Amino acid sequence: MTTNFHQPVDAAEVPRFAGHSTFMRLPAVTSAAGLDIALVGIPWDGGTTNRAGARHGPREMRNQSSLMRRVHHVSGTEPFSIANVADVGDLSVNPIDLMDGLKRIEDGMRTIVEARAIPLSAGGDHLTTLPVLRAVAAGRPVGLIHFDAHSDTNDTYFGGNPYTHGTPFRRAIEEGLIDPKRMVQIGIRGSIYEPGEHDWARAQGIRVIYMEEFIRRGAEDVMAEARAIAGSGPTYVSFDIDSIDPSMAPGTGTPEIGGFTTREAQALVRLLDGVDIVGADVVEVSPPFDLAGMTALAGATMMFELLCVMATSVAKRRAGS
Amino acid sequence: MTTNFHQPVDAAEVPRFAGHSTFMRLPAVTSAAGLDIALVGIPWDGGTTNRAGARHGPREMRNQSSLMRRVHHVSGTEPFSIANVADVGDLSVNPIDLMDGLKRIEDGMRTIVEARAIPLSAGGDHLTTLPVLRAVAAGRPVGLIHFDAHSDTNDTYFGGNPYTHGTPFRRAIEEGLIDPKRMVQIGIRGSIYEPGEHDWARAQGIRVIYMEEFIRRGAEDVMAEARAIAGSGPTYVSFDIDSIDPSMAPGTGTPEIGGFTTREAQALVRLLDGVDIVGADVVEVSPPFDLAGMTALAGATMMFELLCVMATSVAKRRAGS
Amino acid sequence: MTTNFHQPVDAAEVPRFAGHSTFMRLPAVTSAAGLDIALVGIPWDGGTTNRAGARHGPREMRNQSSLMRRVHHVSGTEPFSIANVADVGDLSVNPIDLMDGLKRIEDGMRTIVEARAIPLSAGGDHLTTLPVLRAVAAGRPVGLIHFDAHSDTNDTYFGGNPYTHGTPFRRAIEEGLIDPKRMVQIGIRGSIYEPGEHDWARAQGIRVIYMEEFIRRGAEDVMAEARAIAGSGPTYVSFDIDSIDPSMAPGTGTPEIGGFTTREAQALVRLLDGVDIVGADVVEVSPPFDLAGMTALAGATMMFELLCVMATSVAKRRAGS
Amino acid sequence: MTTNFHQPVDAAEVPRFAGHSTFMRLPAVTSAAGLDIALVGIPWDGGTTNRAGARHGPREMRNQSSLMRRVHHVSGTEPFSIANVADVGDLSVNPIDLMDGLKRIEDGMRTIVEARAIPLSAGGDHLTTLPVLRAVAAGRPVGLIHFDAHSDTNDTYFGGNPYTHGTPFRRAIEEGLIDPKRMVQIGIRGSIYEPGEHDWARAQGIRVIYMEEFIRRGAEDVMAEARAIAGSGPTYVSFDIDSIDPSMAPGTGTPEIGGFTTREAQALVRLLDGVDIVGADVVEVSPPFDLAGMTALAGATMMFELLCVMATSVAKRRAGS
Amino acid sequence: MTTNFHQPVDAAEVPRFAGHSTFMRLPAVTSAAGLDIALVGIPWDGGTTNRAGARHGPREMRNQSSLMRRVHHVSGTEPFSIANVADVGDLSVNPIDLMDGLKRIEDGMRTIVEARAIPLSAGGDHLTTLPVLRAVAAGRPVGLIHFDAHSDTNDTYFGGNPYTHGTPFRRAIEEGLIDPKRMVQIGIRGSIYEPGEHDWARAQGIRVIYMEEFIRRGAEDVMAEARAIAGSGPTYVSFDIDSIDPSMAPGTGTPEIGGFTTREAQALVRLLDGVDIVGADVVEVSPPFDLAGMTALAGATMMFELLCVMATSVAKRRAGS
Amino acid sequence: MTTNFHQPVDAAEVPRFAGHSTFMRLPAVTSAAGLDIALVGIPWDGGTTNRAGARHGPREMRNQSSLMRRVHHVSGTEPFSIANVADVGDLSVNPIDLMDGLKRIEDGMRTIVEARAIPLSAGGDHLTTLPVLRAVAAGRPVGLIHFDAHSDTNDTYFGGNPYTHGTPFRRAIEEGLIDPKRMVQIGIRGSIYEPGEHDWARAQGIRVIYMEEFIRRGAEDVMAEARAIAGSGPTYVSFDIDSIDPSMAPGTGTPEIGGFTTREAQALVRLLDGVDIVGADVVEVSPPFDLAGMTALAGATMMFELLCVMATSVAKRRAGS
Repeated sequence: MTTNFHQPVDAAEVPRFAGHSTFMRLPAVTSAAGLDIALVGIPWDGGTTNRAGARHGPREMRNQSSLMRRVHHVSGTEPFSIANVADVGDLSVNPIDLMDGLKRIEDGMRTIVEARAIPLSAGGDHLTTLPVLRAVAAGRPVGLIHFDAHSDTNDTYFGGNPYTHGTPFRRAIEEGLIDPKRMVQIGIRGSIYEPGEHDWARAQGIRVIYMEEFIRRGAEDVMAEARAIAGSGPTYVSFDIDSIDPSMAPGTGTPEIGGFTTREAQALVRLLDGVDIVGADVVEVSPPFDLAGMTALAGATMMFELLCVMATSVAKRRAGS
Repeated sequence: MTTNFHQPVDAAEVPRFAGHSTFMRLPAVTSAAGLDIALVGIPWDGGTTNRAGARHGPREMRNQSSLMRRVHHVSGTEPFSIANVADVGDLSVNPIDLMDGLKRIEDGMRTIVEARAIPLSAGGDHLTTLPVLRAVAAGRPVGLIHFDAHSDTNDTYFGGNPYTHGTPFRRAIEEGLIDPKRMVQIGIRGSIYEPGEHDWARAQGIRVIYMEEFIRRGAEDVMAEARAIAGSGPTYVSFDIDSIDPSMAPGTGTPEIGGFTTREAQALVRLLDGVDIVGADVVEVSPPFDLAGMTALAGATMMFELLCVMATSVAKRRAGS
Repeated sequence: MTTNFHQPVDAAEVPRFAGHSTFMRLPAVTSAAGLDIALVGIPWDGGTTNRAGARHGPREMRNQSSLMRRVHHVSGTEPFSIANVADVGDLSVNPIDLMDGLKRIEDGMRTIVEARAIPLSAGGDHLTTLPVLRAVAAGRPVGLIHFDAHSDTNDTYFGGNPYTHGTPFRRAIEEGLIDPKRMVQIGIRGSIYEPGEHDWARAQGIRVIYMEEFIRRGAEDVMAEARAIAGSGPTYVSFDIDSIDPSMAPGTGTPEIGGFTTREAQALVRLLDGVDIVGADVVEVSPPFDLAGMTALAGATMMFELLCVMATSVAKRRAGS
Repeated sequence: MTTNFHQPVDAAEVPRFAGHSTFMRLPAVTSAAGLDIALVGIPWDGGTTNRAGARHGPREMRNQSSLMRRVHHVSGTEPFSIANVADVGDLSVNPIDLMDGLKRIEDGMRTIVEARAIPLSAGGDHLTTLPVLRAVAAGRPVGLIHFDAHSDTNDTYFGGNPYTHGTPFRRAIEEGLIDPKRMVQIGIRGSIYEPGEHDWARAQGIRVIYMEEFIRRGAEDVMAEARAIAGSGPTYVSFDIDSIDPSMAPGTGTPEIGGFTTREAQALVRLLDGVDIVGADVVEVSPPFDLAGMTALAGATMMFELLCVMATSVAKRRAGS
Repeated sequence: MTTNFHQPVDAAEVPRFAGHSTFMRLPAVTSAAGLDIALVGIPWDGGTTNRAGARHGPREMRNQSSLMRRVHHVSGTEPFSIANVADVGDLSVNPIDLMDGLKRIEDGMRTIVEARAIPLSAGGDHLTTLPVLRAVAAGRPVGLIHFDAHSDTNDTYFGGNPYTHGTPFRRAIEEGLIDPKRMVQIGIRGSIYEPGEHDWARAQGIRVIYMEEFIRRGAEDVMAEARAIAGSGPTYVSFDIDSIDPSMAPGTGTPEIGGFTTREAQALVRLLDGVDIVGADVVEVSPPFDLAGMTALAGATMMFELLCVMATSVAKRRAGS
Repeated sequence: MTTNFHQPVDAAEVPRFAGHSTFMRLPAVTSAAGLDIALVGIPWDGGTTNRAGARHGPREMRNQSSLMRRVHHVSGTEPFSIANVADVGDLSVNPIDLMDGLKRIEDGMRTIVEARAIPLSAGGDHLTTLPVLRAVAAGRPVGLIHFDAHSDTNDTYFGGNPYTHGTPFRRAIEEGLIDPKRMVQIGIRGSIYEPGEHDWARAQGIRVIYMEEFIRRGAEDVMAEARAIAGSGPTYVSFDIDSIDPSMAPGTGTPEIGGFTTREAQALVRLLDGVDIVGADVVEVSPPFDLAGMTALAGATMMFELLCVMATSVAKRRAGS
């Protein structure tokens, strides 16, 4: 362990409800410089077409992340010992102006990327992933492993709006931010607008794995395919909390019954091991529709699961260099 | 597609929270004439012995059904293209007078049946199924596929009351509305009043499948048996939301832990394919005990799943005629 | 009574939880033609800077307005007998695009105004009042009686955004839609950004009545002044639900303690009698933060109070013509 | 103090959340024999026309009544020292059968009356007051002091139903249980069905005091009149929780804004001093719509306020005899 | 059936929401004398390090236990026919003083044990199990089958506090109350403080079965091992409600995603058949964080499942003696 | 304005839901050095005898305090311009050990006092005021102005416990921390344990003003007396949120109906002007029982009202020196 890495407050010393609320009780820092992984909030739901509220996601995920401890009980990973991690605060946003909101998020994220920290962000709605990718994938398209109930590759809404939380991945592909042949979507389900709704995605080369296929095959098999699709190149991981069942994640804007259990979601993320993750997010946690912090806890725990995989990868890279 | 079929409002044009609330955003019509399938509310919980509130079910199921889209993502069914479907409103009810309530529901439902529309109703408590069957099964007993935590074949309550939401199927059999040899109950669980509580049902010929048997055998096997039991005759499908686990459907009056997941419930209903459904319902959604519309969403989605199966059957019949 | 006026469903015949939900259980009509007063929803919160959710306001105000009956118990007004009133549905909105949202609302409202119906709208956030005024006050500035915790005459937010729910009245004055000398704000309270925050408003001639002044003087005195300020010219009435105390209207986005009681709010609105109201609204009801429909009920009742005053005015005008 | 009177559990010894839940932490007894005042629950909402749930009222009022202590802080009354009071449990009810429900309540209440205990009941909806009066007023009509938002003197609902929570006092007068000339209603408000809706009540001689009159005159003046109306004869006091404002009593089925504050309600009940109370109730507490027990606490506290007045009266009578 | 055993109130006679609330609607008795199994509440959360509220657990579990009926639908067990069971009320507690709280619970539980009744308690936080074991295991260490998300074998908190709900089993082993070689923990999961956090437990001989191992092996296999570990000696069963997934048991203080489904939990407890249970508990139900009684219902149902196993054992012992 | 005073984040630049949550959006600092007024959280409810949860108060009051702006709209006070104010975080607490908790709070508060900052703390339950007074009143007794529903001068609970949230002021007087002749309690109400319950307080010289006296006299008169009682000496102000009515502050542990309106509470605190405040607190905000942050908002606003009075006093002192 590099002893100067940031360490979380210990819940056996300071109770979880005490102290300023930060992601995983890590120090709040004002710059990503020196960090391996930057935990960052994006309190913005400007792209939401149904129930808003994901703007409140980062605050509640910070609160609930006080339940995270230092060591992963299965893998044994100690993320805060093998990587330097801190809470860099929330990106600047604009709840009123969609285009300005996109720009602010991109600019904020670019600062993190330029500091050579890998971002792990807490949304915000899924449209936040677009400006994040503009910063993270600048210069070269990335692979994408996408957990979601919805494909989010629609074209336009409300008579021509190209930017909503239902369209980020179409835009990202059009902008060359994602290599669609290195993209996989897992957990897609629920009724669709048109029979060919996922044709465009498939035509780009995206592999769309419906929930029903996941149920048949299981996490191991599906993730083996996902890792093969992503390959060894830089890959972004986007986790929409509505991929999890609404009973376990009620606080979200577009719930679909029949989702992942949290056990399945944990298994899926653990199987990301070995992927070269250049950024990740957990999005669409909407506290106004939640109960007792349940969804924010699920979101915070998925962030911890992602962090463990990411920190392991950071440590390997450091060891290898 | 017969272009003059009613079509839902498109959520990519009008947001889901906008406009008058109808089942699946279909037009509200004043008569079932010309419809293949009539979506109808029965806001009545006069038979409820524990927590009331199912009277509010239709309104909330309408609200949450705005999340339904046009196409089933697995079967590809486009129910609104192959069948004429609309929202015929709520049946007349009487929250104060049980016998008058039963009569009003029967009368209202008879109008729909006489218009040759197949009813898919949103309850209301499970006693609503009795007057519905009086209209739907008039003249010939029907088969019945029944998803529920409870058998609902008790005899009387509170010193002799024959009509409660715990007794509809005993009454329906006594009245010759159901052919008990063509009846199956799936998902039954929870403690019971007396050791022989289900003896009467079994003695009539009803096949009672406990949750534990379902867990062992799985949806495919159980539904193969259910389809065989129902046979090719006219069959009614009754879906009590409390068959689903309380974590996924907390808004109900008599919750029992250990229920179906929504994934299992969807699988079960999809396996109704081929059954000659002459009517169906989703009952016992009780919004006062719900969170963020979760149970109403589960109920509305089960209605959509049922609708897809029913519309397919309608289309086949039309094609065959 | 003109017998062909639209009449509400009677709760002694059809229970309040039954039937399609419309404002005050009036018929849903597709055009404002022939109406004296058009009840209309504006499900849009694109201007909200803090907690969103007012987009869900119209639906819940419709639901709770089922508690309204036919006659005002104090004034004896029978609004549905002296004016033709109906629910014209929701205006078209765009939750993603602020400028398009403003335009859609203006266009929709213009259709109502051109049909010579007086609009009584249910928001939506307070920015909706701007496009409404663009339609209602086209051609001549109107007086404005404004109940609110906040002045909503700020200039810009988030680095220059001119359109938020904190700015509609500054914009409306700049656009010549309001005659600021005929404008009064009642109930203003809570901490402010800058010492001179209300100087601009006062410099325009707006009369700003703080809650503390209201407490000292009482409703009668304050409304006598308000009526004098508005004078006999055409006047718009805007009622922000956050003028009411958060205990009585918790479901709102920017609550301020120390507000009106609902009794005071009712007294204030009843004292509008004699004002030439050319349009009115109740805004900022945000159901995701509400309890058991309490705020929506307060909003719906304020709509009924406004309606009684407006219908009386309509009847007088008709009698006078 | 008669030392063998029942005493409540002391919260300084046993915390309020501990132990079996009874009214005011008094012993649960199986018979009213020997009691001066019997606290009794009537868990029945069979007469409810809108939102049900008052059936759960007694249980929650018991829970919240654990916050009551032994002495009234203003009057100094020690009800448990000057009267023998206990919790006699819940009356037998029937949630399914209205006529049987009415009969069971009447029979149960008659047992209490015949034991010469004065009942203070926790409803249940307001229809429960009818069978209570049948027991309490058997043989001679009583005076009635009635706190409510609604007059509850309607005739019939839903095509002729004479028994609902909107009709108990018309039925009671028709049955000769109430002397309408000794009856007063306080707090009536909200829109009404017909212009002459309260004409029948007034024609019987009932004094109807609207909320607006109460606001003008205040509690002292209004209650002086009420006491004069009731006179020295036996009088029943019926307190509908919806007389209190929905912000302070959200858990009820037919809320009307603009109600009493709890301070006003307490003042009103304290001014019952000297009235010969032969029975009293607190009705329409509906926990499913409540927050954190707030309404049940208001109901339990109103029961305590009533109890103090009733116990004082009992003590005076005993002293006088 | 021994006809003089206590019997629950029948929900087909008295509705579930009526009457005083006791565990499973059994009589409230003042002494455990004559009972085979004593149902008892321990309303105390003095050891809670995060969110408090388990002090309210017994009251709500009593309320929700009204949904239990007389017969187990799978095993056919009729616990109230083969064992004498009653509700002995709540133990004396002290919410302010931890050491006095521990002593009161131990003393209260000793009274039950000395009456030769087997306790089945409703917590309360998990620290309550320590004083219970002091009474139950007095004189000889017991085996322990422990269902939980957390091992609860930590050493100290907050600078040296030895008694918290995270430490009871370490203390119990140190005090010789548990034979660690006859102890198994099932369902352990979630991030941990230190890499060797469970080393102490394992070093004592405790078998720690992580959730992931349970998922792989299933209930049958795991419980076969658990029964072998417990052997034929006296064994205590401790069921922490947070072993169940937070979606099914949100009302708890230290939720961890990825828990047992209630179906799995039921299966696990049913497989306790044959174990010589000398006491059992269901702990950590915290109603302030619950929805509509869902967690309390899960807790009450687990109590019923435990009761059926315990009653069977009691009956066998009686038959054998 | 001293330009180097800490300034809050501007909500017109950064939305209220964004950024790390601190009191009034001020900087989080690690030491009170250089501050005039230190905002500090005390997340501890170890003295709570009924419903716990005040441990979560500071976090939610921080969240809701984001609604505070820079200027008091009535007095024109700009607290952040005339005093140096910041958020010094939460004091160290111990949720498990009452005596250690008291010591930690006293020690933490002493550090603030020794840095010559005036503390304005957010509780926590009312027992926190005792250790705060030990630090603030060290060396000389202070006057105390106390807003509360309860006198909190009881002696012991649960068989002799001297330290609970019902006893802090008796202990503080016994310890010589308060000059009881300079102490006044305002808003006391609700039933009491014993007839002479407030005799001890009065015997010490405490002036106890019941709610009923406040209603008669009004805020101006009562506060004139309160200021006279406190005199010109150093005075502590303790504001229990349960002094406010439960409808406006439902999130608290021992609610009493009939409380202050928030308007009254604001008026009372504003009339503290001129008092030499050496410390203040807002206690007993318990988020688990709250709705949509309503109580925390009331608490945060009362903190802002107190801050304005305190900052004015600081500025006067500075000007005078």
